[in-house]
Amino acid sequence: MGIKDQILEMAQAAKVASQSLAVARTDVKNQVLKGIARGLEENISTIIEANKKDVIYAQEKGLSKALVDRLTLNEARIKGMINNLYEVIALPDPIGSIVKMWQRPNGLKVGKMRIPLGVIAMVYEARPDATIEAAALCLKAGNSVILRGGSEAINSNLCLGKIMTQALISAGLPQKAIQVVPITDREAVHELLKLEEYIDLIIPRGGEGLIRFVTENSRIPVLRHYKGVCHVYVDEKADLKKAEEICFNAKVQRPAVCNAMETMLVHEAIAEAFLPPMLTRFVEAGVEIRGCEKTCKIFPQAKVATEEDWPAEYLDLILAVKVVKDMDEAISHIDRYGSNHTEAIVTEDYTRAWRFLERVDASVVLVNASTRFNDGNQLGLGSEIGISTSKLHAYGPMGLEELTTTKFIVFGQGQIRS
Amino acid sequence: MGIKDQILEMAQAAKVASQSLAVARTDVKNQVLKGIARGLEENISTIIEANKKDVIYAQEKGLSKALVDRLTLNEARIKGMINNLYEVIALPDPIGSIVKMWQRPNGLKVGKMRIPLGVIAMVYEARPDATIEAAALCLKAGNSVILRGGSEAINSNLCLGKIMTQALISAGLPQKAIQVVPITDREAVHELLKLEEYIDLIIPRGGEGLIRFVTENSRIPVLRHYKGVCHVYVDEKADLKKAEEICFNAKVQRPAVCNAMETMLVHEAIAEAFLPPMLTRFVEAGVEIRGCEKTCKIFPQAKVATEEDWPAEYLDLILAVKVVKDMDEAISHIDRYGSNHTEAIVTEDYTRAWRFLERVDASVVLVNASTRFNDGNQLGLGSEIGISTSKLHAYGPMGLEELTTTKFIVFGQGQIRS
Repeated sequence: MGIKDQILEMAQAAKVASQSLAVARTDVKNQVLKGIARGLEENISTIIEANKKDVIYAQEKGLSKALVDRLTLNEARIKGMINNLYEVIALPDPIGSIVKMWQRPNGLKVGKMRIPLGVIAMVYEARPDATIEAAALCLKAGNSVILRGGSEAINSNLCLGKIMTQALISAGLPQKAIQVVPITDREAVHELLKLEEYIDLIIPRGGEGLIRFVTENSRIPVLRHYKGVCHVYVDEKADLKKAEEICFNAKVQRPAVCNAMETMLVHEAIAEAFLPPMLTRFVEAGVEIRGCEKTCKIFPQAKVATEEDWPAEYLDLILAVKVVKDMDEAISHIDRYGSNHTEAIVTEDYTRAWRFLERVDASVVLVNASTRFNDGNQLGLGSEIGISTSKLHAYGPMGLEELTTTKFIVFGQGQIRS
Repeated sequence: MGIKDQILEMAQAAKVASQSLAVARTDVKNQVLKGIARGLEENISTIIEANKKDVIYAQEKGLSKALVDRLTLNEARIKGMINNLYEVIALPDPIGSIVKMWQRPNGLKVGKMRIPLGVIAMVYEARPDATIEAAALCLKAGNSVILRGGSEAINSNLCLGKIMTQALISAGLPQKAIQVVPITDREAVHELLKLEEYIDLIIPRGGEGLIRFVTENSRIPVLRHYKGVCHVYVDEKADLKKAEEICFNAKVQRPAVCNAMETMLVHEAIAEAFLPPMLTRFVEAGVEIRGCEKTCKIFPQAKVATEEDWPAEYLDLILAVKVVKDMDEAISHIDRYGSNHTEAIVTEDYTRAWRFLERVDASVVLVNASTRFNDGNQLGLGSEIGISTSKLHAYGPMGLEELTTTKFIVFGQGQIRS
């Protein structure tokens, strides 16, 4: 069978499986998740063996150290995957709840019932832990899932896929509810992206290139997240102590992630008081400062920022700093260079706090808190499957609820339309 | 300036306008809508004159009578458009409400605030009344809108566009908040569909061909509605009197619309009692019956249905009828041939009513009520901009709320992540 037919068959099977899954009870879905956890526990050495093949091949292929690291499974990582499964088990099942209900003048009772999306395809890079994480969230929300991880992780993923299939069978759910694409050829992704009749959503996770490729080639809706160029604006009325802690945390606590601060915007009225101690602390922590002209005047150790620095997502210990004449200039800067991801203001001024919250267009906007809180777990959604920076369906961290939709249900007593 | 640059300029202007619109107050937005209503009122003869050019050209081009009819504006239709504007004015403004809010263990207060999507592009056929309707709903929900109606309506749409621009200027909102594409070349649509950086949503309205064209060529999320192959399943435990009224209404009250019944599924235990009077009544109303073998045996006047009848969206006084041995067969039939639009069951049985509601995958599922209720107004959402049969973002009729999204807002007191 050719790639095209093989992918079509998988998608059709996923659709059929999704029909039983949509009405599967919470305890049965949790039983599958527990079965996967047990399967991982019992097969640690088999998994590590399969993973070793991938790792050796990746090293031969000359993949970067960071990529090989993300690909590698060891006992601790597998335990982490198991813990993650128990977290998903503990989350409330969103399916079946009726989110609101009202009555029409003719007596019709109209409600919106939460239902699964149907079939979700995940296209991601060579991270085998994402295979379990994504499958668990999709399944808990009642969706079939087709998993297409990076080709370098194929042996690991097929091994994990077998464990998941076994757990589905043991719980009496359709085994095609979770499928790992066994084809490493990129054509498989191309074919997946065409099957709008069977697949309801594509979630790409990975670098910007992967995400653009999926967006440009998909007929199926895509939930995506390009990049995080996050700002903290330190207002004239900021509590400078709070501002320093928040900015330091936003930049330094974990610089390689999307919700880390990349540019700090500082009101000119407090720049001379705020910048020297703040930037000294950054430099001591190994952060390279690239400042606007005014910043460099106040803090001569800073490099001069160029036009490339303002839209940059460094994901590293580098920080762009700009002194602005007021909040409007800060907001204009964010409008121009921000990525709709995470934006924060530090201020004690009530009116500006609200204006910033309302006016700034980002999936998460914070007052007096670190940008690092843009995360499903931190915001209270439980595990997340990603952060959406586009506005359709979900904007911000996506938890279980974002993997569902609602349908209208109508209870009548014989009503007809006149 | 070429088409590409012209469309790009419109999209960029729409994006800039959307920033002011997002924070515009309800009374200002309503003032624009009132201004448009007044503008229509005062320019009835100008509008009809512009429309006449379109109608004459369409007739010369040999467009069908139905299309010319939908294109034609007269005083009554313009009054209808004005009434529609007042209905939108009366709707509550969804923007700015905080749909929920909770507190995290570290004291962060996290909320979801309703915000506009940003820029919406409507691609539709030659129906000038849709120009006003779509613009009004998008504006009320705080979105900029780019309107690209069928080329045959270009003079009408440009005339309406001028009236809307005037109303925006008078109310002090950016005049690019509502823009009519002045280019009739299809290339304009192609260019629109690429501008994901500026446009947040595309809504195509029209025939299946237009919708497929948009879906296949768009990089921007699309909310769409292919077709309505709607079923009524008359269960063994149905109240046959209710069933007859509901089925008759669902088929005959307005057969040319998407929520009309196309196939009636009848439980075999009541087929002999139900079908003869029901089908006689249909035939008397001019409905052509195409039945399965059993139907034809019970009601010999029926034509024999072929495989083409089950997926057909007749939009006409034709009805396919199938006798099924139980509800499972009815549901399987709907799974196979339904279009996720509207599905109804008629039954007095509590357990089956719930099972049908939960199991059937359609944007609106009804018990003991006509399929004709799948409509924003009828379900209590106010005016609708369309019905989505895909599940992302919205499933079912889309009112004002479906033209919005939510962002996370976070109120901190200096929290950082550890």
